[in-house]
Amino acid sequence: MSTYTTTLTWTGGNTGTSSCAGKPDIAINPPTEFGGDAALWTPEDLLVSAVETCLMLTALSVLNRQKIAITSYRSTATGTMEKTPQGLRFTALSVAIEVRAAEADREKAEKAVHLAEKYCPVSNALNIPVQLTVTT
Amino acid sequence: MSTYTTTLTWTGGNTGTSSCAGKPDIAINPPTEFGGDAALWTPEDLLVSAVETCLMLTALSVLNRQKIAITSYRSTATGTMEKTPQGLRFTALSVAIEVRAAEADREKAEKAVHLAEKYCPVSNALNIPVQLTVTT
Repeated sequence: MSTYTTTLTWTGGNTGTSSCAGKPDIAINPPTEFGGDAALWTPEDLLVSAVETCLMLTALSVLNRQKIAITSYRSTATGTMEKTPQGLRFTALSVAIEVRAAEADREKAEKAVHLAEKYCPVSNALNIPVQLTVTT
Repeated sequence: MSTYTTTLTWTGGNTGTSSCAGKPDIAINPPTEFGGDAALWTPEDLLVSAVETCLMLTALSVLNRQKIAITSYRSTATGTMEKTPQGLRFTALSVAIEVRAAEADREKAEKAVHLAEKYCPVSNALNIPVQLTVTT
């Protein structure tokens, strides 16, 4: 069993500081459409980043275990939030991944990234589908 | 409809840079138990922070709408990940909130924070229960 702990302090107005022991603080506020400053991370951004980064680290772990070397990995992730009868809800989350490997390993790398989706604990903690596209 | 987009670039080994346009980058790597450096944020930390920060901003919004002034707000959030037959899974997420207000508003503030849980889009995106405790 592993536990992950963060702390949060309200810093006035609609801002706060999210902390995780020994790591750099993250200043947060609401999205601009809810009155926030575009220069700060929002909870919605953090959720999208959590999924995107977990997919990459899980993919790197699978690639490493399968001894597949990659030369680059980049992704773009987008979460969609909509007004529903129950209130604001995330309705979709998509991650577009571009992974590069030597020609002989390209197909294996693509499969490994798709496999990562199955194991990624963050995307598995969501009740919305995570749509993955992988290009090599 | 609102969308939230982040990008991620692998920076070698088991590290990456999570970016959100116009905001400070966040360096990420796996938890120490999976070979990461304790000085960097992990996807697991980001997920816990996403829930914790969303609860606070939703609570501030409810408090503001109800014209309840608070004097301080702090919280600590912990996510628990366990090995299951399906692989590593988050099994619990708890958030302990301490909110302070003038004596006459304490009860109202506590109720407003509990109400926030119902509306928080990030905790509503999870398939695990978010356990909230509020002290005033």
